[in-house]
Amino acid sequence: MMVLVAYDVNTETKAGRGRLRHVAKLCENRGQRVQNSVFECLVDPAQWVELRQALVGVIAEDTDSLRFYFLGKNWKRRVEHVGAKPGYDPQGPMIV
Amino acid sequence: MMVLVAYDVNTETKAGRGRLRHVAKLCENRGQRVQNSVFECLVDPAQWVELRQALVGVIAEDTDSLRFYFLGKNWKRRVEHVGAKPGYDPQGPMIV
Repeated sequence: MMVLVAYDVNTETKAGRGRLRHVAKLCENRGQRVQNSVFECLVDPAQWVELRQALVGVIAEDTDSLRFYFLGKNWKRRVEHVGAKPGYDPQGPMIV
Repeated sequence: MMVLVAYDVNTETKAGRGRLRHVAKLCENRGQRVQNSVFECLVDPAQWVELRQALVGVIAEDTDSLRFYFLGKNWKRRVEHVGAKPGYDPQGPMIV
């Protein structure tokens, strides 16, 4: 299933900048960055539970926010890209 | 229908900064900002055609990008928010 993860981390403090890097790292391990703070994560239910728990464990809920959008299995017909950096297709052919 | 608009505009030039403001303004007129460059736009099909055309007309396709996610009618069960700034519910009760 495809989950879109969008986050907003308060970077006014050193700790906040650390949280931002950590959130981005967690998302990079599971997905593709499509915007500055937006990742498309193609995960199975177990992987999602693990990623969600890790993300929620990192942020400071009073200043940061996470927004998850569940695009389901037929996610490709729910997404349109216009412009630069179209991004790879995680389910497309592997070009080696 | 709910359309999530995520954008990445190259702001290295003055023109780019102008495009960014313009894209944000167009989205603000039709939706709610949920992340720095992510808006939830509750639109009917005709409004969507108009907004999409306006957004595509503003960006420079070689450096900027737009990504649209069509969340459909039952969008509420496709979205989860954790943390600060949960945002209002555009279809919820109007509190005056």
